[in-house]
Amino acid sequence: MDLLDGIATTRAIRRYRPDPIPDEDLATLLWHATRAPSGSNRQPTRFLVLRDGPKAREAKAILGRAFREGWGAKRTDHDFDKGSGADPVSPKARAARAMQVFVDRFEQTPVVVLACIQRWRRPHISEGGSVYPACQNLLLAARALGYGGVLSMWHSFVEDELRKVLAIPDEVVIAATITLGVPEGRHGPVRRLPLREVVYDDEWGAGTAWALDPPDTRFSRAGPAREAR
Amino acid sequence: MDLLDGIATTRAIRRYRPDPIPDEDLATLLWHATRAPSGSNRQPTRFLVLRDGPKAREAKAILGRAFREGWGAKRTDHDFDKGSGADPVSPKARAARAMQVFVDRFEQTPVVVLACIQRWRRPHISEGGSVYPACQNLLLAARALGYGGVLSMWHSFVEDELRKVLAIPDEVVIAATITLGVPEGRHGPVRRLPLREVVYDDEWGAGTAWALDPPDTRFSRAGPAREAR
Repeated sequence: MDLLDGIATTRAIRRYRPDPIPDEDLATLLWHATRAPSGSNRQPTRFLVLRDGPKAREAKAILGRAFREGWGAKRTDHDFDKGSGADPVSPKARAARAMQVFVDRFEQTPVVVLACIQRWRRPHISEGGSVYPACQNLLLAARALGYGGVLSMWHSFVEDELRKVLAIPDEVVIAATITLGVPEGRHGPVRRLPLREVVYDDEWGAGTAWALDPPDTRFSRAGPAREAR
Repeated sequence: MDLLDGIATTRAIRRYRPDPIPDEDLATLLWHATRAPSGSNRQPTRFLVLRDGPKAREAKAILGRAFREGWGAKRTDHDFDKGSGADPVSPKARAARAMQVFVDRFEQTPVVVLACIQRWRRPHISEGGSVYPACQNLLLAARALGYGGVLSMWHSFVEDELRKVLAIPDEVVIAATITLGVPEGRHGPVRRLPLREVVYDDEWGAGTAWALDPPDTRFSRAGPAREAR
């Protein structure tokens, strides 16, 4: 698969076939994840892989509970069942159904990867620059091998419980939960804001004549400004 | 370029030829950056492009000063001129020379992109998950088009000054400074820790038999545990 095509078509995949990911593919995904940069090449990220081991099952049950709780709250707070969401064929209603299936089946997710960062100083946004590029590489590499996944943050509700079950040390932070598997069913295109709404030239808010989207780009509105929880 | 090859060979590029990046290429890079995911597809990232405009020149001068100061401190704190660094052909000495050229020529960098995030709640590591995947896509797309770049954080020394010059609102945080240009000279391979040192299976610290690096992988030690500043 072409590099630009892969970047352009990698989207959140939340429905998986039950097929496992073979060890060698998983190693390939993680190896590509770890090619990402980190500050001073410090490489503070550790990838904790949860599949069918005893601790993994326990951790997946804890995460499944957190994800169902997180989605339940978001479904209400973001009015997923109101407005266009009341129409079952609307994109909003379809997104809600996909999310419900994702959280209901969480424990059956073939692979869950916790991307953890070993903190080396006090929290600052820049530490994310040493872990999330690797997460994106992981998702792109998954696309290359015919897998799909999504980055989620609902582990934050149960981080202490996970820390205990998985023996994660105190100075380590779980930065992301990445679910991975073989995509099931059809998935829509990547939709984003028009480029000219997010690119400024020379000064904040200054428009650009040159920041044009390719003709077949699919657009979205901006997501909700407020948090689900 | 193949997706996996692109991921595997994208490395920090700090030396650039003076060639500009044409508008249409810059639009392609930024469009691919914005295909990255963000929490709830909220898309809080804005890309402020600094080239040769009046504000850009002013901002680049401020950044150049910060980068020279940042590198000066790091050069001392991380003992770049001691140990193997005293030998001018050592990797350490070569890295130091490349960094020195990078900061000395900062104002001549063809394109500087400030990746900014509109904060929607109080600071938390997870907000980085809505900006740094886009930064990684930008660097990968640059690789696809024959450009190179690097993610830097030294803007943090001068964020208030930049905010004033570029009219960046208070609720916006500069998450990364990305420099971009046509690579000059030769650049070494990506070097990382062995995969088995950063991948755990089922429990923190639990080794994996399957997390194997491909035979031609080049390794690094872990970077410094402490911060330069």
